[in-house]
Amino acid sequence: MTSTRQFLSDNAAAVHPKVWEAMRAVDEADAPYDGDRASAALDERFADLFGRDCTALWVATGTAANCLALGTMVQPHGGVACHREAHIEMDEGGAPGFYLHGAKLLLCGGEHAKVTPHTLAATLDPIRDDVHQVQPHALSITQASEYGCIYSGEELAALKGECDARGLGFHMDGARFANAVAFADAPASAVAGPVDALSFGFVKNGGMGAEAIVFFDTDLADVARYRRKRAGHLQSKGRYLAAQILAMLDGDLWLENARAANAAAAEIARGAGARLLHPVQANEVFLQCDAAERAGLRGQGFGFYDWGEGAARFVAGWDAREEEAQALGKAIAAL
Amino acid sequence: MTSTRQFLSDNAAAVHPKVWEAMRAVDEADAPYDGDRASAALDERFADLFGRDCTALWVATGTAANCLALGTMVQPHGGVACHREAHIEMDEGGAPGFYLHGAKLLLCGGEHAKVTPHTLAATLDPIRDDVHQVQPHALSITQASEYGCIYSGEELAALKGECDARGLGFHMDGARFANAVAFADAPASAVAGPVDALSFGFVKNGGMGAEAIVFFDTDLADVARYRRKRAGHLQSKGRYLAAQILAMLDGDLWLENARAANAAAAEIARGAGARLLHPVQANEVFLQCDAAERAGLRGQGFGFYDWGEGAARFVAGWDAREEEAQALGKAIAAL
Amino acid sequence: MTSTRQFLSDNAAAVHPKVWEAMRAVDEADAPYDGDRASAALDERFADLFGRDCTALWVATGTAANCLALGTMVQPHGGVACHREAHIEMDEGGAPGFYLHGAKLLLCGGEHAKVTPHTLAATLDPIRDDVHQVQPHALSITQASEYGCIYSGEELAALKGECDARGLGFHMDGARFANAVAFADAPASAVAGPVDALSFGFVKNGGMGAEAIVFFDTDLADVARYRRKRAGHLQSKGRYLAAQILAMLDGDLWLENARAANAAAAEIARGAGARLLHPVQANEVFLQCDAAERAGLRGQGFGFYDWGEGAARFVAGWDAREEEAQALGKAIAAL
Amino acid sequence: MTSTRQFLSDNAAAVHPKVWEAMRAVDEADAPYDGDRASAALDERFADLFGRDCTALWVATGTAANCLALGTMVQPHGGVACHREAHIEMDEGGAPGFYLHGAKLLLCGGEHAKVTPHTLAATLDPIRDDVHQVQPHALSITQASEYGCIYSGEELAALKGECDARGLGFHMDGARFANAVAFADAPASAVAGPVDALSFGFVKNGGMGAEAIVFFDTDLADVARYRRKRAGHLQSKGRYLAAQILAMLDGDLWLENARAANAAAAEIARGAGARLLHPVQANEVFLQCDAAERAGLRGQGFGFYDWGEGAARFVAGWDAREEEAQALGKAIAAL
Repeated sequence: MTSTRQFLSDNAAAVHPKVWEAMRAVDEADAPYDGDRASAALDERFADLFGRDCTALWVATGTAANCLALGTMVQPHGGVACHREAHIEMDEGGAPGFYLHGAKLLLCGGEHAKVTPHTLAATLDPIRDDVHQVQPHALSITQASEYGCIYSGEELAALKGECDARGLGFHMDGARFANAVAFADAPASAVAGPVDALSFGFVKNGGMGAEAIVFFDTDLADVARYRRKRAGHLQSKGRYLAAQILAMLDGDLWLENARAANAAAAEIARGAGARLLHPVQANEVFLQCDAAERAGLRGQGFGFYDWGEGAARFVAGWDAREEEAQALGKAIAAL
Repeated sequence: MTSTRQFLSDNAAAVHPKVWEAMRAVDEADAPYDGDRASAALDERFADLFGRDCTALWVATGTAANCLALGTMVQPHGGVACHREAHIEMDEGGAPGFYLHGAKLLLCGGEHAKVTPHTLAATLDPIRDDVHQVQPHALSITQASEYGCIYSGEELAALKGECDARGLGFHMDGARFANAVAFADAPASAVAGPVDALSFGFVKNGGMGAEAIVFFDTDLADVARYRRKRAGHLQSKGRYLAAQILAMLDGDLWLENARAANAAAAEIARGAGARLLHPVQANEVFLQCDAAERAGLRGQGFGFYDWGEGAARFVAGWDAREEEAQALGKAIAAL
Repeated sequence: MTSTRQFLSDNAAAVHPKVWEAMRAVDEADAPYDGDRASAALDERFADLFGRDCTALWVATGTAANCLALGTMVQPHGGVACHREAHIEMDEGGAPGFYLHGAKLLLCGGEHAKVTPHTLAATLDPIRDDVHQVQPHALSITQASEYGCIYSGEELAALKGECDARGLGFHMDGARFANAVAFADAPASAVAGPVDALSFGFVKNGGMGAEAIVFFDTDLADVARYRRKRAGHLQSKGRYLAAQILAMLDGDLWLENARAANAAAAEIARGAGARLLHPVQANEVFLQCDAAERAGLRGQGFGFYDWGEGAARFVAGWDAREEEAQALGKAIAAL
Repeated sequence: MTSTRQFLSDNAAAVHPKVWEAMRAVDEADAPYDGDRASAALDERFADLFGRDCTALWVATGTAANCLALGTMVQPHGGVACHREAHIEMDEGGAPGFYLHGAKLLLCGGEHAKVTPHTLAATLDPIRDDVHQVQPHALSITQASEYGCIYSGEELAALKGECDARGLGFHMDGARFANAVAFADAPASAVAGPVDALSFGFVKNGGMGAEAIVFFDTDLADVARYRRKRAGHLQSKGRYLAAQILAMLDGDLWLENARAANAAAAEIARGAGARLLHPVQANEVFLQCDAAERAGLRGQGFGFYDWGEGAARFVAGWDAREEEAQALGKAIAAL
């Protein structure tokens, strides 16, 4: 696993040196749980970033962030509309069922793993408004999407219109929110749009084990605070999580890291042409390529996941080495 | 919160330097989740320590450890016998209700927060064996107890007898298991006794955010593995948690730290005499003292929690300074 | 079980002839679930009875009624204050844990199984207002209580004051509400007092399998409607349940039956004197009597339950025969 | 709703006179819950019918029956494979999420709403055997299917093979099991095949509010018994439910009623020809017909549900009048 040619997952990357530094800097006794100074600083730091009031809670994982956020919007008898390839549906081991006490995911289609007003309506409109069918309580989207694609401000506004019309809470899974902002070259607030809560990921982007749930509706945070403890996610030495997040926000390290990852992905995709299954708008490249081609790339030392039968997924971490990304890009172009 | 005279909580202590080192040592890309080499080493290390086969899973918090362990033993319609002052009853924000899907805690009495066969029977015997009452599925005890007291080998064996007779799983909350072993001066296996699963705490004892659930019944671990992910506790960079635990096990650092904490508690208690509410067998001291006395101690710079109306709790961390503990001990003796 | 001297349980009684008639009267095709005319008539009928707007849902059992009602007031991370001998704590097989998704019962003391502002405070005041402890969301009381005792209007108002001060929903388990009204000789509205939802029992009082959840806060009913279906309690031929309830309300049959049962209990208790463990205010008599005395009564053909070591419980159904109650009363007086 | 030309739902039908009689016959005091003689007789009666040991529990609704049965086979972190148009997925208001504590339905395709080994594999094979994805624990099929179609003995055996190979429990939703047996003209045991538990429906077939969960694996029944109480489905006057079921079994009334319903459906479908969307193998007819045609039928007094845009569903109850079914059949033939 020590290959320098590793494009398996941004989850595997190292921790950024500045994150280490910040963690060391809080390594003296402070109040436990979230009573420490670092934790106390989070709300204001995110409010600065987003230009509006918010409450931010740290948790160790994106799964916990997503599910705790949704738990504030969805009653146990309700449902969450999401893309059928969303992480909460595909890869969280049933965590939404657990955290939402049996609420149901209502699956929507959409190209590039993006929900649209049209695909949302196609899923929700047939639901009869009676007690025999699970009614939607929230919409959850992923920014950047599971296929590394970005919702524009217009798209977000349109979805918000649907949420309002249907009485839904609006959640954004931002495991790669930084990559989305880096791509959009717009303020974080524009890329988050009008959501009620954002799971803001740092682990894939240079952190160790800290994500933020940013609640723009602070009443929701008051519920989530209890639920976080109840889920065993209120770490007693929470200052080490807060420190990671603050370090990432300092000097926009989060953005710098995401830009590096996105740039590496762009290098990988540079010569891929028609092989690209999705536009490359973040740090992931999905490529049509057959088994022989994949074997060839692996023979050159590149690590990546198969994506079904005829495709491969390459993910660039914040610490991807430029020359390796270029080498991979050339190898792909040469297929 | 920077007082060197801090005896509020072992939760507030710093991270041990060797733990930092070990975390840095895994700071290169490795497989995500628990596919890394450090995580893979845990089973064997704990098997060595306990002298029998076991499976160990890391999680970030003791609450998660306790509840994931119990979730493998207790069906949603069952109950968990525990002391009425147990952490799972008093301080986990209802986490057992969440993780056990509504199972019930069946509260037992017992001096020094220790369950006995007698107090267990007093709670369980009146439960009619019919569907109208919640039937017990497991017993959970705390070693060292909430009042810093230790179950002897004989006591554990007697409780195991009850568990067998009643068909109960047996869980040990070992948030301060290290302190119990340090006090008992016996092998870890004797202090864990015949339990099916142990929540082995490291965070209070020099770790940052890693506890181990040690399953001596490895079938239970197979369930817990799925539940850990489902609870959002499978961190993607799990190697940093595994590294903490391995560092604590290396050269018996866990025992060394616990001995230091216990020694400090003994210093604090040295002159307390009849004021002691419970024998001091770990790193906690519970002291009868009135408001004026508490104010006096605080006036001398000592930090601690009130414990109800007429008492105080002092907890020594692994990094308690000997001279401070002695100073506190003298101040108490002088009350 | 065909003894005419049966005082085991009002659950065992027959169905009242007028209830049978009403069920037969709806035995033609009508809309399924609660779309039928009988179900549609419930809200108005209960509004007439209580003199204020309400929404009433039928369910088959008191357990379902209690738990569905509480589910509208209590979030999964919250708690329900109730008496430690309440039916929801003692006899519902953990149903509150299931229906409330792991919420916790917070147990209060109180003579005659009645919660008072004082016993409520004794349980709730020590709960720290932080995320480590389960916070109360509702209070549930039983009218008549588990020991057949009645809350007065003043007592209800005082508890409502506590609920308001603490932000709690207020629920009444009225499995024997009819007996309470019959005893109080007051309007139903006074005996329900200012609760938000009432489980109004009919099964023990001449019905077959239909209770009503009466929501005085109709928003709560909108949640309960979904939860009822989700719990499998929306029967497809709901008209037979609605018909039972309407029959009981017609001409105050519910009150007539309850008066008969109360009168029988009064006969039983007439000569009991100091043996009475609780005042007899409904249809239950709790009597101090030793094993030999109980054997003696059983030898005379009387059926009843032991109540712990030295006591017995006698319950009079709506169809208790006056002469049998008198005979039992004399037998008790003669002990 | 008093139309004699009603083909909306078999849920709306009246209660069979023999069922009424049997209910009246138990209208004397007997032991509450399921301690009465009628409830005690169920196991043997179903064992006779199926020719093998079984344990049968009554509940009021099919939703409760299905979910209580599945709850014995599926852990909260697991999943249930079922057809994407199964009642548990479409029409039970999220009850499986509630009863299974957040377990997930894993949706399969298949013509006529029937799961096949092939469609099962298409859903289950792509599930990676790791903790990130919900693993299947059971298969649930519907006999007759949601489109009124029957699984043959061979089809059931093939599915059982899949269950065994994959380690799945096997459940059958038999809301219209009687209609399936009537069509198959085979023993009940052959139509149930090798399932572990069967929800045997009576409400649509002449009962009032009683279904049976028949467990062929009696260990599962021991769990279900607790869960039934916990779900508020253990009615205190259970003898009235048991009596309904016994009445239906007596003299094969269940089969007689189902034959009548099936015959009516056959009449309806007689001249439908190519309009039939599914073979008519039970008591349901799904017909292609446009809005004008539907309006025409309704103009003749026939009641039925639209089935999406261009179709209609007709269901014949046990009490469908032959002449009405014939009239409808002719009206359809004349379209």
